[in-house]
Amino acid sequence: MSDQVAENTEAPEEDEAQNYQLEPRTVASILYAVEIDDRARLIELMEPLHAADIADLLEQISVFERSRLIRLYDKEFDGEILSELDESIREEVIEVLTPQVLSQAVRELDSDDVVDLIEDLEDDQQEAILGALEEADRAAVEQALSWPEYSAGRLMQREVVMAPEHWSVGEAIDHLRGTPEQDLPDQFYHIVMVDPRGHPVGNVTLGKLMRSKRATKLRDLLEETFQIIPAMQDEGDVAYAFNQYHLISAPVVDDEGRLIGIITIDDAMAVLDEEHEEDILRLAGVGESSLSDRVIETTKQRLPWLAVNLVTAIAASMVISQFEVAIAQIVALAVLMPIVASMGGNAGTQSLTVAVRAIATKDLTGSNVWRVIRRECLVGLINGVIFAVVMGIVGIIWFGSPALGYVIAVAMVINMVVAGLAGTGIPILLERVGVDPALASGAFVTTVTDVVGFFAFLGLAAAVLL
Amino acid sequence: MSDQVAENTEAPEEDEAQNYQLEPRTVASILYAVEIDDRARLIELMEPLHAADIADLLEQISVFERSRLIRLYDKEFDGEILSELDESIREEVIEVLTPQVLSQAVRELDSDDVVDLIEDLEDDQQEAILGALEEADRAAVEQALSWPEYSAGRLMQREVVMAPEHWSVGEAIDHLRGTPEQDLPDQFYHIVMVDPRGHPVGNVTLGKLMRSKRATKLRDLLEETFQIIPAMQDEGDVAYAFNQYHLISAPVVDDEGRLIGIITIDDAMAVLDEEHEEDILRLAGVGESSLSDRVIETTKQRLPWLAVNLVTAIAASMVISQFEVAIAQIVALAVLMPIVASMGGNAGTQSLTVAVRAIATKDLTGSNVWRVIRRECLVGLINGVIFAVVMGIVGIIWFGSPALGYVIAVAMVINMVVAGLAGTGIPILLERVGVDPALASGAFVTTVTDVVGFFAFLGLAAAVLL
Repeated sequence: MSDQVAENTEAPEEDEAQNYQLEPRTVASILYAVEIDDRARLIELMEPLHAADIADLLEQISVFERSRLIRLYDKEFDGEILSELDESIREEVIEVLTPQVLSQAVRELDSDDVVDLIEDLEDDQQEAILGALEEADRAAVEQALSWPEYSAGRLMQREVVMAPEHWSVGEAIDHLRGTPEQDLPDQFYHIVMVDPRGHPVGNVTLGKLMRSKRATKLRDLLEETFQIIPAMQDEGDVAYAFNQYHLISAPVVDDEGRLIGIITIDDAMAVLDEEHEEDILRLAGVGESSLSDRVIETTKQRLPWLAVNLVTAIAASMVISQFEVAIAQIVALAVLMPIVASMGGNAGTQSLTVAVRAIATKDLTGSNVWRVIRRECLVGLINGVIFAVVMGIVGIIWFGSPALGYVIAVAMVINMVVAGLAGTGIPILLERVGVDPALASGAFVTTVTDVVGFFAFLGLAAAVLL
Repeated sequence: MSDQVAENTEAPEEDEAQNYQLEPRTVASILYAVEIDDRARLIELMEPLHAADIADLLEQISVFERSRLIRLYDKEFDGEILSELDESIREEVIEVLTPQVLSQAVRELDSDDVVDLIEDLEDDQQEAILGALEEADRAAVEQALSWPEYSAGRLMQREVVMAPEHWSVGEAIDHLRGTPEQDLPDQFYHIVMVDPRGHPVGNVTLGKLMRSKRATKLRDLLEETFQIIPAMQDEGDVAYAFNQYHLISAPVVDDEGRLIGIITIDDAMAVLDEEHEEDILRLAGVGESSLSDRVIETTKQRLPWLAVNLVTAIAASMVISQFEVAIAQIVALAVLMPIVASMGGNAGTQSLTVAVRAIATKDLTGSNVWRVIRRECLVGLINGVIFAVVMGIVGIIWFGSPALGYVIAVAMVINMVVAGLAGTGIPILLERVGVDPALASGAFVTTVTDVVGFFAFLGLAAAVLL
C-alpha cells in the first residue's frame, strides 16, 4: 500500500489533506503575528483553522506564547477551542481568558460539551463557568454531572427524538417539523420508538423515514440491530458495544428502563480513542500523560512506576547476590546472565500485551483461557529451544566452555516457558481480582522473568560448573 | 466512577448488558449441542446472538469444535459472521463451508463487506467468492480492489446520495423517494452537494432536510464542518480526520477531485481501532497477532523480535565483558549492574511510548520537538537524581561502600537522562526516515539504555574503585 499512498503525497496541494498535521510554516507565522502584536494578521491566519487544530496549536507552543496568543486573540476565542483543549492546559488557558470572553465562549457550547469541559476543573473555575450559563443549560449540566464520571449517563446527550410505537411516518415527520430547533439535538440520525411506559423499543433511520409513505407505521421500519445502554454502564463498555455491533446511536435508559438520553457514535469513537491511549500508556508504566504537561507533573506521573521497577530490580539483584561465589570464580556468568533475563522479559512482554489486549476486547474468556495459556507456554518453549541452541553455541564459541553453553541453553528454555505462563497468567489473575491488567502486569511479569532468569542460569551454573 | 458503576453490575439482569462478554454458560451449552449433534438446539441457542458475537465464539473454541459447529449449523451460517471473523481463522472457516452455503452467505453481503472479506484470502478462495457474486456486485468488488490496500478508495462505499447545488429540499426528497432501494447505501446520514464538475461542495444532514420547507435551497442548509478525502489517502489518516473533526461521513474524491464514494464514521471507527491495536502490539514487539492464531504462526511472528533482542542483549554483554577484571575483584558490581540498566530501560520505554503516541496523534511536530526532547531529558534528570540518592543509600547499606553507592548514583543519573533523550529522539528519527516508530523504537532504546547503563556503572567503578 505505502508506495502508492506515498506517491500520492508528492502532490503538494494534497499534502496537507494527506496528513492533517499543523504546517510548521503556519505555526511560525502565527507566532510571529503574536510576536509583533498584529491582531488582524493573527485572526486572518487562525480563521481557516478548525477549533481542534487551534487547540493542537495551543498545546504545541510554550506557556508564554500561549498566554500572549490568547490575550491577543481575545474575543475571537470560541468555546469549541476550549472543549477541544487537552485537560493538561485547560485550567491554564481558562485562567488567561477574561471573564467576558470565557462566559461568551461557554454559552456557545452544547450542554454535553460543557460537561466534558468542566468535569476536571477546579471548583472555582467550575463555578465561574456554571455561573456564565443560562439557567436551563446550567440545570442540564448539573444534572449530567450527577451521573458518575465515565458512565453512559455522563456521556449521553439529553435531547432525544422519540416517537410512540403506534405513530405513522407522517405523524413522525410532522412532529419533527413542529419541534422548535433548540429542543432537537443538532445532529441526529434515528428516531427512537418508545412504548407507553417510555421504554425504547426500536430505532428508525431518517433515511428510511424519508423514503416511506406517510401512512407507513414506524414499527414496520425498525432497524435490525438495536442496543439499549444502561445509564450506569461504563463508557468503555459503551464504546465496545458501538464498535462490536456497528451502532450509530443507542438509547440510554435509567434503572426502570425508561429512555433518558442517547449516545451517538462520534462520542463513542472519542471514548474508544481515550481508552486505547490509556492502555498503551499504562502498559508502558506511564499514567495519564500528555506532551503539554509540565516537567514537574510528568516527573510525578512517572516516578511511582520507576519506584516499583526499582523494587523489582533490587529483588532480582538479591537473587544474583546469592551466587556471588560462583560469579567470583566464573566471571563469564556475570557477562551472560543479563541475556537470559532480557530474553525472558521480552517474551513475557509479548505474551502479556497479547493477553491484555484480548482481555480488553473480551476475546479472552473462561471458554478459552486454558487453551491460550497452553499456547503461550508452547510458543515460549519452541522459541526458547531455538534461542537456547543459538545461545548455547555463542556461549561455547565465546567462552570455549560447552558446559557454560549447556547451562545458558537450559536456563533460556526454562525462562521463556515461564515468561509465556506469567505473561498470560498474571494479567488474567489481576483482571479476576478487579485490577486493570494494563496497569500492573508489566512490573510483575518482568520481576518473574528476571528472578527466574537469574536464578535458573546462576543456579544451574553453580550446580554444574563448580 | 468505578464504585457506582460497580454497584450497578450487581444487578444480574444488567450484568450481560454491562460487559457484552459471551456468557461461558452459553458457550458451554452451544458446544454441548454440537457434541450431541442437536441441530435444532444449536440454532435455537445461536438465534439471539449477533453475528459479531458468533464470530467471537468461533474464535474462542478449538479448531475441532469450530469445524463440527459450522458443519452442524450449515445453511444457517450467514455472511455477516464471515465478515466479522478474525482473519486468522477466516480461511479455515471458508474451507469448512460447503460451496452452496458459502456462495449464499456471500451474496447477502454489501460489496464493501465482501472487499473487506476477501482482500486477505488466498487467490483460489478469492475466486470462489467472486464467482459466487452477481455480475454487478463482482464488478463493484473488483473495482474496489483496484485501489491500494489501506487507502480511502478501498475503505469507501460506492453508493452515494448526491444532489446538484441548485436543488431545493423538495427536489432532493423527491429524488430520494424515486431512487430504487438497491441504489442507496443501507445507512446514510447526509446528502452530498456537488457542483457541475462533480466536485463535492458540502453536506446536508437528513435531519435538517426533513425539517425544512420544500422550497428551501440545499445550499442554505450546509453543515459547517466538511472534509474531503482523497481516494489515495491512508486509512489511518482518514480515521484521524474523523476523530479530529468529529465527522459523521465524508466524501471521497479521485485525482480530479470528482466525488467517487463516501466513508462513514462506523468504518473510520473500525480503522481507528485496528490502528491502535497495531501500535500496542508493535510497541511490545508482536507483529499482527490474535488469540486464534496457531502455535506455529504465533511462534513465527514473535521470533524475529526476540532475535533482535538477542543481538542487543549480546551487545550489552560485550560491554560487560570489557570489565571482567573489575567484576572479578568486586562481585558487588555484577549484583548491582542490572539495576542501573533496568531503571534506564524503564524510563526509556516511558519516554518512548509517550513520543510514539504523540507522533501518531500528530501532536509531536517540528514546532515543539525540541521542547519535548528537553522536557524528557529534564524529567529523566530529576527522576535520575531521586533514584540515584535512593540507590546510593541502598548501595552503601547493602555493601557498606560509600564509593560504590556514589558510583551507582552517578551511573543512574547518566542512564536516565540518556533514556529520556533516546526514548524521544529515536522514534522521531525513525519517523523522519519513514520507519514506523512503534515498530522499531523499542529495540533501539533498550539497547542504548543497556549499553550506557552497564558502561557508565562498570566504567565508573573500574575508574574509581580499582
